[in-house]
Amino acid sequence: MKMSPRCTYCLLSRVHFQSKLSTDDEDLISKTLQECLCVMNKYYNPEAVSASVATKIHRKCYEVLEDGDPYEVTKKLINQAALKVLPVAREKIYENSPDDRELFRRAVLASVVANYFDFGIMGFDASEDKFETAFLKLFDHGLDVDDTPKMLGLLKDVVYLADNCGEIFFDMIVFDVIKKLGGNITLVVRGGPILTDVTMKEVKEFEIDKKVDRVMTTGSNAVGILIEEAPVELLEVMKDATLIISKGMANYETLSEHNFGPIAYLLLTKCECVAEDMGVEQGFSVAKLMNYP
Amino acid sequence: MKMSPRCTYCLLSRVHFQSKLSTDDEDLISKTLQECLCVMNKYYNPEAVSASVATKIHRKCYEVLEDGDPYEVTKKLINQAALKVLPVAREKIYENSPDDRELFRRAVLASVVANYFDFGIMGFDASEDKFETAFLKLFDHGLDVDDTPKMLGLLKDVVYLADNCGEIFFDMIVFDVIKKLGGNITLVVRGGPILTDVTMKEVKEFEIDKKVDRVMTTGSNAVGILIEEAPVELLEVMKDATLIISKGMANYETLSEHNFGPIAYLLLTKCECVAEDMGVEQGFSVAKLMNYP
Repeated sequence: MKMSPRCTYCLLSRVHFQSKLSTDDEDLISKTLQECLCVMNKYYNPEAVSASVATKIHRKCYEVLEDGDPYEVTKKLINQAALKVLPVAREKIYENSPDDRELFRRAVLASVVANYFDFGIMGFDASEDKFETAFLKLFDHGLDVDDTPKMLGLLKDVVYLADNCGEIFFDMIVFDVIKKLGGNITLVVRGGPILTDVTMKEVKEFEIDKKVDRVMTTGSNAVGILIEEAPVELLEVMKDATLIISKGMANYETLSEHNFGPIAYLLLTKCECVAEDMGVEQGFSVAKLMNYP
Repeated sequence: MKMSPRCTYCLLSRVHFQSKLSTDDEDLISKTLQECLCVMNKYYNPEAVSASVATKIHRKCYEVLEDGDPYEVTKKLINQAALKVLPVAREKIYENSPDDRELFRRAVLASVVANYFDFGIMGFDASEDKFETAFLKLFDHGLDVDDTPKMLGLLKDVVYLADNCGEIFFDMIVFDVIKKLGGNITLVVRGGPILTDVTMKEVKEFEIDKKVDRVMTTGSNAVGILIEEAPVELLEVMKDATLIISKGMANYETLSEHNFGPIAYLLLTKCECVAEDMGVEQGFSVAKLMNYP
């Protein structure tokens, strides 16, 4: 996905947000904005890939703040909040013993709705106590784009590209369902801390590796999956997959520039630009299969 | 007022907003953002005056768009919306024949509330049909900072620095009250089109000059009042005034860097940074007298 004019101020707003998470030093916050403005000024153009510029901006931000993970505490809070809602989600998914098709649809829906567990996106801040209400409302609304029936036959070798903390617990229910349906899963998490995304640290902490057949990383702390920074083995596994499941906007922003497929984008269109690029409305719950004949 | 990190993305958001008012040409909009980013990158630093950088940004924006007044149509809409609410305001102000002190307070309150008639400030967009409801709610709430009693004895020679279109009709009620109380008024409007601010064009169109003793301009289309671009006569009149009444945030942002006084800032703290700088909360209705012994 190419960069929109909107990305300029949205990204700078996020830089400000995460700088305040990291420090109370106003001079340092101001210096961070200054340095990130400089990066933005250098790289912003309508042909640039949004998540690629975002990677450069966030790396500069972390560097100036001298903070390798400004979201360290936030991620813990998100995980706690998510774990509180998890039993409600599980109940909703398994209610009245659904058949495989419906079970898969519901699990995917819950994991899309859990994409709400993200902080710092302008105009879509989620405060902790609103999570359960928001979850139930979005779950009852259902998927606005629902290609899950088409995905059912493609689950033999799934590459699952994770997104945020919190959300990952709901992904784990999808893993259970895919395993029940006889599929293999390669889970891919970020190679280093970036935003609120899942890394190997959380995989170990919550024993997520026990739910899947293999865990790999994106090879770096890039926003989304930057092909030029990804390990060769990951690219091969993605090429061989019967289905790539890509969670969240950043993975979409990077992978929509390539032709991997079949690929299912599962996300909430929290941002107007991503919604527009996908040809759907903002605030939609999306499970869209692409690059599939 | 000095620039805050927040001003960077707020200003770029406003650039995007007004670019879309001016054109549908996505390439031009992108180019405009690019050029304004460059200006921001050059001038943003924590010691810069916010409105001064805003002036540079908006001038670059208008220049790239080749549009001397992107808000031309918007200003007409704002004026129409304001005129619809005006009778309601007048009724509220004169209800039950208040004494002079209360009459002045109510007129000032209405003109502060009318500061709501502004578009394009991030997080505080006002859509037309919400105006009457919002007006009544804010009017009934009253002034959060009310120095109007102290202003009453200072009305002999008032310099009144106008802000937005729409709002100006409510200022005209304040003019009526000041005249009734025996004061003289020098009205000051922008020297050229900038944002939704009042210029000589509206003064003539709505015969605003008939309500005051004299009309002057800020000498340029700067955001607020840039002393270095203001006519010498204006500075003299401001120095000699028994009271300067300064409407809106931009006038505060520029004049808070100087020592004119006594000066009454009448505004809604629509932006967090202005609120913080004034030592009040965001969303406050303020009539604050400063530089007065």
